[in-house]
Amino acid sequence: MSGVLDLGFARLDLAREARQGLPEVVYGPGKTVEQISGIVTGLLEHNTGPVLVTRIEAETAEAVMARLDPGVHDEETRGTGPDDGQPHGPGTYDAEARLLYWRPSPAGDFSVTVVAAGTSDRPVAAEAAAVAAAVGLDTTAIHDVGVAGLDRILQVRDRLQAADALIVVAGMEGALASVVGGLVRAPVVAVPVSTGYGASLEGVTALLAMHASCAAGVTVVNIDSGFSAAMAVHRIAQSRVTAQSRVNTPGGHR
Amino acid sequence: MSGVLDLGFARLDLAREARQGLPEVVYGPGKTVEQISGIVTGLLEHNTGPVLVTRIEAETAEAVMARLDPGVHDEETRGTGPDDGQPHGPGTYDAEARLLYWRPSPAGDFSVTVVAAGTSDRPVAAEAAAVAAAVGLDTTAIHDVGVAGLDRILQVRDRLQAADALIVVAGMEGALASVVGGLVRAPVVAVPVSTGYGASLEGVTALLAMHASCAAGVTVVNIDSGFSAAMAVHRIAQSRVTAQSRVNTPGGHR
Amino acid sequence: MSGVLDLGFARLDLAREARQGLPEVVYGPGKTVEQISGIVTGLLEHNTGPVLVTRIEAETAEAVMARLDPGVHDEETRGTGPDDGQPHGPGTYDAEARLLYWRPSPAGDFSVTVVAAGTSDRPVAAEAAAVAAAVGLDTTAIHDVGVAGLDRILQVRDRLQAADALIVVAGMEGALASVVGGLVRAPVVAVPVSTGYGASLEGVTALLAMHASCAAGVTVVNIDSGFSAAMAVHRIAQSRVTAQSRVNTPGGHR
Amino acid sequence: MSGVLDLGFARLDLAREARQGLPEVVYGPGKTVEQISGIVTGLLEHNTGPVLVTRIEAETAEAVMARLDPGVHDEETRGTGPDDGQPHGPGTYDAEARLLYWRPSPAGDFSVTVVAAGTSDRPVAAEAAAVAAAVGLDTTAIHDVGVAGLDRILQVRDRLQAADALIVVAGMEGALASVVGGLVRAPVVAVPVSTGYGASLEGVTALLAMHASCAAGVTVVNIDSGFSAAMAVHRIAQSRVTAQSRVNTPGGHR
Amino acid sequence: MSGVLDLGFARLDLAREARQGLPEVVYGPGKTVEQISGIVTGLLEHNTGPVLVTRIEAETAEAVMARLDPGVHDEETRGTGPDDGQPHGPGTYDAEARLLYWRPSPAGDFSVTVVAAGTSDRPVAAEAAAVAAAVGLDTTAIHDVGVAGLDRILQVRDRLQAADALIVVAGMEGALASVVGGLVRAPVVAVPVSTGYGASLEGVTALLAMHASCAAGVTVVNIDSGFSAAMAVHRIAQSRVTAQSRVNTPGGHR
Amino acid sequence: MSGVLDLGFARLDLAREARQGLPEVVYGPGKTVEQISGIVTGLLEHNTGPVLVTRIEAETAEAVMARLDPGVHDEETRGTGPDDGQPHGPGTYDAEARLLYWRPSPAGDFSVTVVAAGTSDRPVAAEAAAVAAAVGLDTTAIHDVGVAGLDRILQVRDRLQAADALIVVAGMEGALASVVGGLVRAPVVAVPVSTGYGASLEGVTALLAMHASCAAGVTVVNIDSGFSAAMAVHRIAQSRVTAQSRVNTPGGHR
Amino acid sequence: MSGVLDLGFARLDLAREARQGLPEVVYGPGKTVEQISGIVTGLLEHNTGPVLVTRIEAETAEAVMARLDPGVHDEETRGTGPDDGQPHGPGTYDAEARLLYWRPSPAGDFSVTVVAAGTSDRPVAAEAAAVAAAVGLDTTAIHDVGVAGLDRILQVRDRLQAADALIVVAGMEGALASVVGGLVRAPVVAVPVSTGYGASLEGVTALLAMHASCAAGVTVVNIDSGFSAAMAVHRIAQSRVTAQSRVNTPGGHR
Amino acid sequence: MSGVLDLGFARLDLAREARQGLPEVVYGPGKTVEQISGIVTGLLEHNTGPVLVTRIEAETAEAVMARLDPGVHDEETRGTGPDDGQPHGPGTYDAEARLLYWRPSPAGDFSVTVVAAGTSDRPVAAEAAAVAAAVGLDTTAIHDVGVAGLDRILQVRDRLQAADALIVVAGMEGALASVVGGLVRAPVVAVPVSTGYGASLEGVTALLAMHASCAAGVTVVNIDSGFSAAMAVHRIAQSRVTAQSRVNTPGGHR
Repeated sequence: MSGVLDLGFARLDLAREARQGLPEVVYGPGKTVEQISGIVTGLLEHNTGPVLVTRIEAETAEAVMARLDPGVHDEETRGTGPDDGQPHGPGTYDAEARLLYWRPSPAGDFSVTVVAAGTSDRPVAAEAAAVAAAVGLDTTAIHDVGVAGLDRILQVRDRLQAADALIVVAGMEGALASVVGGLVRAPVVAVPVSTGYGASLEGVTALLAMHASCAAGVTVVNIDSGFSAAMAVHRIAQSRVTAQSRVNTPGGHR
Repeated sequence: MSGVLDLGFARLDLAREARQGLPEVVYGPGKTVEQISGIVTGLLEHNTGPVLVTRIEAETAEAVMARLDPGVHDEETRGTGPDDGQPHGPGTYDAEARLLYWRPSPAGDFSVTVVAAGTSDRPVAAEAAAVAAAVGLDTTAIHDVGVAGLDRILQVRDRLQAADALIVVAGMEGALASVVGGLVRAPVVAVPVSTGYGASLEGVTALLAMHASCAAGVTVVNIDSGFSAAMAVHRIAQSRVTAQSRVNTPGGHR
Repeated sequence: MSGVLDLGFARLDLAREARQGLPEVVYGPGKTVEQISGIVTGLLEHNTGPVLVTRIEAETAEAVMARLDPGVHDEETRGTGPDDGQPHGPGTYDAEARLLYWRPSPAGDFSVTVVAAGTSDRPVAAEAAAVAAAVGLDTTAIHDVGVAGLDRILQVRDRLQAADALIVVAGMEGALASVVGGLVRAPVVAVPVSTGYGASLEGVTALLAMHASCAAGVTVVNIDSGFSAAMAVHRIAQSRVTAQSRVNTPGGHR
Repeated sequence: MSGVLDLGFARLDLAREARQGLPEVVYGPGKTVEQISGIVTGLLEHNTGPVLVTRIEAETAEAVMARLDPGVHDEETRGTGPDDGQPHGPGTYDAEARLLYWRPSPAGDFSVTVVAAGTSDRPVAAEAAAVAAAVGLDTTAIHDVGVAGLDRILQVRDRLQAADALIVVAGMEGALASVVGGLVRAPVVAVPVSTGYGASLEGVTALLAMHASCAAGVTVVNIDSGFSAAMAVHRIAQSRVTAQSRVNTPGGHR
Repeated sequence: MSGVLDLGFARLDLAREARQGLPEVVYGPGKTVEQISGIVTGLLEHNTGPVLVTRIEAETAEAVMARLDPGVHDEETRGTGPDDGQPHGPGTYDAEARLLYWRPSPAGDFSVTVVAAGTSDRPVAAEAAAVAAAVGLDTTAIHDVGVAGLDRILQVRDRLQAADALIVVAGMEGALASVVGGLVRAPVVAVPVSTGYGASLEGVTALLAMHASCAAGVTVVNIDSGFSAAMAVHRIAQSRVTAQSRVNTPGGHR
Repeated sequence: MSGVLDLGFARLDLAREARQGLPEVVYGPGKTVEQISGIVTGLLEHNTGPVLVTRIEAETAEAVMARLDPGVHDEETRGTGPDDGQPHGPGTYDAEARLLYWRPSPAGDFSVTVVAAGTSDRPVAAEAAAVAAAVGLDTTAIHDVGVAGLDRILQVRDRLQAADALIVVAGMEGALASVVGGLVRAPVVAVPVSTGYGASLEGVTALLAMHASCAAGVTVVNIDSGFSAAMAVHRIAQSRVTAQSRVNTPGGHR
Repeated sequence: MSGVLDLGFARLDLAREARQGLPEVVYGPGKTVEQISGIVTGLLEHNTGPVLVTRIEAETAEAVMARLDPGVHDEETRGTGPDDGQPHGPGTYDAEARLLYWRPSPAGDFSVTVVAAGTSDRPVAAEAAAVAAAVGLDTTAIHDVGVAGLDRILQVRDRLQAADALIVVAGMEGALASVVGGLVRAPVVAVPVSTGYGASLEGVTALLAMHASCAAGVTVVNIDSGFSAAMAVHRIAQSRVTAQSRVNTPGGHR
Repeated sequence: MSGVLDLGFARLDLAREARQGLPEVVYGPGKTVEQISGIVTGLLEHNTGPVLVTRIEAETAEAVMARLDPGVHDEETRGTGPDDGQPHGPGTYDAEARLLYWRPSPAGDFSVTVVAAGTSDRPVAAEAAAVAAAVGLDTTAIHDVGVAGLDRILQVRDRLQAADALIVVAGMEGALASVVGGLVRAPVVAVPVSTGYGASLEGVTALLAMHASCAAGVTVVNIDSGFSAAMAVHRIAQSRVTAQSRVNTPGGHR
């Protein structure tokens, strides 16, 4: 298997799956239906893991799904990848998360809890949760626990402390990351959200505030990037799997 | 009494006391010992309320105090103000608050609680508390209640809820303002602090975060300005006094 | 009464009314007619105070009002809240303020004056005034008193000085906050407005300028947030009521 | 054991060790020798894990160490904590990392590699490595692998891929985080460094660039905060330990 | 030939071709079809080199081309420039580059390679390549060599090192400029791209990061300005030509 | 007289006096005593108007004055300029304005009033006034008229309205420019001052606020640049002189 | 004549004409046709000078003009102002300047030259020129003299030097202000323009660059504000008129 | 020859000379005398080209020179590099440029002219010129040609046009880059300088303005980085040499 697949309009990094544990994830905006379909087909045929397209609008997603349906799948363009002969189907679209995906991994035993401060944080939280689930994390979500109503956080304290990792999604002042970071010992990945107005500066205030957080060891990803947060937790989960296999393999080393 | 006292190097707004309920407050930085002494003397002689010099370093304060001591007070420069004949004394210096003051008002029945997140917020909290006390507010302080240790806040919940007004002093991400704002129904004045490093941007992050706070009705003053917060609460306390006198005065109006 | 009402898409903080003196206020943008209607119904049934939806456009407001009208109100979804049996009606919509509300509090004896610099500040001033009136403040408004025409301010000087609190709404350079702050002794809450162009930086210049104000004790809320200013004054008014009840109740404490 | 120890000048969050797996870490700047010594003594006596003071200059560290030496330790101020009777010793000072610590945890089997781009990133990398080692991570460091000399990175590719987690320390444009993030599957925590001049904007450019990184799942901590990066990895390591104990404990849950 | 041609709505700098080696290039946005057509006609008639219109949308380009076609070219407005009598034709439009041009220079022996990190950088890379080709540079392009997949860069290392100059087009964190700058000895002109979201700050992050680059001697042009990068390389190519003619001309000097 | 005097370390623009009505003004910071002395000597000898050195500290000024004193003036370095033979003297130093000057112009009939908000604006106001006086403007200053004490401004209203031009010097929120701009019909040049802290952003807030001013036709110069403001008014005064001479000169034109 | 005319939706500052020499100028955006028509009518009837509406789109302007036409002018709403009985007519609309005006002042003998760098600066230059002409300045315009083609500037050097004042309109890097400022001795008002992309930061770069200009005494107004520049020059022209009348009036003083 | 030399405290990229035509350049700040001496020795022994240390203060430079002097050079630490046996000498220190160097390349036939706007730009211009000369460029400098005195630029127009490349060093508004860029056809590398105050924003304004420049094809390097500009021109010069050797070598290719 060659490491790079040249589609003319894009060069797929097929080796990424072996190197990082997941095929390339496709960022939807700015790509045509044809480009997305071509990339997805290439990844489905030459890689074996989940294939994801992020931030894809419903209309585009439906057009891609129509092209990818095996019934209309053009046999001639089929490659000779490892999963040849297995129909991929049209994929699944999660509208709130704007995520289109194929071959989701079954949920493993690494649990992640996505915590969101308010209603306007939902789309970003949905992306984080949908990507996390698609790459095999055992994912749950808790909404509406803004710090101005502290009792709502305290009510879910046990659930927060039970997770292997947490993704905290918050706009405005982003204080939820500090509060959750102080309650749990597990890794906390904070996602600033571009909601709010005025002094929110389209998420920059939340990003800076999360970095200045008084809770030690909270890490931050880009504004609105539920995807990045899920991938960060995926790295953590993979790290554990790698370690376990090392333990279970006599003479094992990395 | 003329509304303005011209000292050559400054023109004192003597009418401010009648207009706003307090004499002008002197901002120390950039003024010489002579200038501060002259202004303070003018205010002591022509106004009747507390006279405050803020952000004054110990060395300067001592020099001013030496000049203002009645024992060495030059009789010839004494004016004919309303408190003529009453020795003002050298004043009192609060080193942590960097505040020098004369004629503090006795504590009234309006209570204000100054809440600070961490050790590095102490100097700003000290200024807020010292100014508040000097202008007659019944002032208490609670330290070390950062949001990363939520239990410490919950332990003082009752004390927070008992105050007539609260001043929340916090650097870093400033999340304490949202949390306290959500716990109490009284006015909350938030003071961003310029401590922290990197993404704290010398207090700008906390200022923006406090404005973007999800707790409704929290107001904000300038970075590090414990003084401004105390004055904001003084306005609130005065407003109550005015209302009460209105109630108690038949036919009273403002 | 449980403290939290879980609507599936949102978790209402019902205890806020007891804790802070007002039910949760609903921020309209990004919510569907169904979501708003559900939240409003929940708050009307389980809380007793005014219910407000802010920043709601006319079309959405009308759709919500149609759903909430008792004539078409679905009996089955009625809860068993304290005001059961009392028809809530469709609510009232203030188009300039973009505010939809139910059960406004009767005007109390705490007066607030909303002062606006220019025509383009009107929508923000309207929100501040409408929210203030809905939560029971005795509200009046003064428009078109920009500092470039000082005589217009001086003409209303007495009216400014008669208010228990003032909300100053100003875009551009925000200088009105300093001028008003220097004229009155009551609390002044400044609202920067995102009007203007170029160096106005969408309200950030006014926000910073208001913080740098030379008038002591002026506090600031987020850009364009007439709502926040009204809530800040509501906190002040509540603080007075609490104090009065404390005085009138032998042995009373909070 | 009470959850909070009140030292007058600070309130120690003693429960943090139980809640988060580590005692509070002391941030050195702005604290006196007396304050640091008092806090450290309190933590040593009432908690059992490693006690760390970060960003402490050599002179201050030596003064603290002199006070903490058991030979001069004042018996009267000794508490009745769990390690009573065990001399703590003067602690260990790491000058490059500016870290003073007691009771370091023995190295566990979770490996972290600290990767630094250039010579000027060394102090931050040193703090990350020293804190990581003190809290029990199996820590190694690789220096001078800036992206402008790609071969130097490729030479250590295997070492990078062998780590359970990586901390990437880079100033200037921060590109090393993207490059390393693309080479490994383990968690990558990026630390922007405030070195550089002009367009580096004291680390803000690196911080923003790391967030905009094209390598998925890289997370970022505050500028210059080697400490935060180490704590983030400590959370990851703890998460694995928790999971392992869960697996090994029949009926176990958290 | 006068140095300036006054078209009423514009004054053409005809002398620029003699002074700088290329006629003025027309920036399309904000100009009407009539204005563009008039300027292009003026440049075609009074200058002899390539005439370019940048950032022109397809619809506008087609309208200009229709007006400029010699078949409909109004003879009366034809000037008496050096190429009088030679039909210019409607020009050529490159849709991806949004470039409309006439009289492209034949490719010389100065080679430039345009390197782009990702799919969303393509339009800017296309502009750089199209302008470079139109002004006579021997232009090739390499796409999809983002630094997160280092192997893709290493695969093209030889091609990068073979170019006389390189244009690196990259959004997000802009790290590609540092990596390429470290691999080659030829001039590298970096173009930050405004793609990405959140911390990308519409290209400002990439611009700053490219300036802070650890690769010595990389230069930067304005965000999204493929045009500027091509012109910068054109200056380099011209400089070589000037030098060669100087060498080949006995007694030659400038 | 040649237009440029090459001193080796600097090339003096001698023609500026003819072109702009004033010799070059020397910006002091970063120049050695020798350099300043050389430049001043050159300007004194080859130009005829006032020679000014701005932002020069007392110690440097004294050293320059010692070198320039005619008693020690080295005859050999004397040029053959128009004022040859006339001793220039050591110059005059204004410590508050940090201005060193020779040959000040006598005061003409163009009046400028420098208005300053507070004590900390004095040094900038002093520079504006000293430069204005040195170049022949009829200069007066009014201090301590901050907008928070509106009555102080109203007291000097007549004086403000009597000036031919006004320079408004203000830090913090810079509101004084709007207020004065609204009171007078003459030109108003606003100088933002870098005093204040926190949200003042070292004068940037005042600069932006002055640009966003609601008073039409107020112009702004750089932060702290009393010099620029004086020069702007000098341009206005010169324009009047030019016009008057044009009127008085039959057949005159420029 | 009362100083303020209350229209309900606006309070007109009628005294401004006496105070500042011009009636209030109406800023169009955000005002309805009815509001603009009402304000204009009020100003036409109660003031005597030119009445201007800026930034008004063609459609709105036409609607206002239809309402203001004397043929349809409602007699009942006519006031009793000084110009009663004189039909005002529908006004004049300048589409490029987006200016609608009535009663323009005849051109006086104060000349202003508006200089613009490029085609995209034309709308701002047009506003400056149209407002300047409407308030009685003798106005001319010079376009397309960007500094990259220095010869074009030098060709018009005499024309630049002949003006009583100059308005320099420039986007991008705003360098034209420095160059023109160095060529003339008259007042120069610089207007930064929000054209350009990327590093132009919507005019902020030009604004900052103009302030940092090396040409002494150049002043700056807000981004895109041709209006402000014209008003600044109007202040200068008025100042001359005032001075001349003072000279011509025996014993006259202000 | 191994590609990397590990000195313990640093890993030298020895292969850079072969890859990029110059040994690594040492950035002085933050390095000890021992570290600099060690790195320099390593580069002198294992590479053959010029060795440079930038931004090194005089005191440090002298200490390094003392250590490097062959008389005291420790034979034991001498490597077996290509120049073994040849004494390197103590190096040469250029105080204005803060550059310490060994083995400068002889001047080739590629000419670069460094143009500086004002006196305060001299140190940066000096660094650019000294580095350029040390790496073999034929370097000249022109000072004091700020755009406010256009005639000074025009006087050197021929000299500017004669250079193979130009480095334009300018602070304040950076307009010189546009003006020079418009006068010449050769490559122009602009260096923004952090001089100036207020709106100069420590060089950021000049950097942005240079990017927004209206002169096509001007490129920009980091603030104050005369070094980067020299290296950029070195890349251009190398590119020419490479091309010439290719032409002269039958069958040659790279």
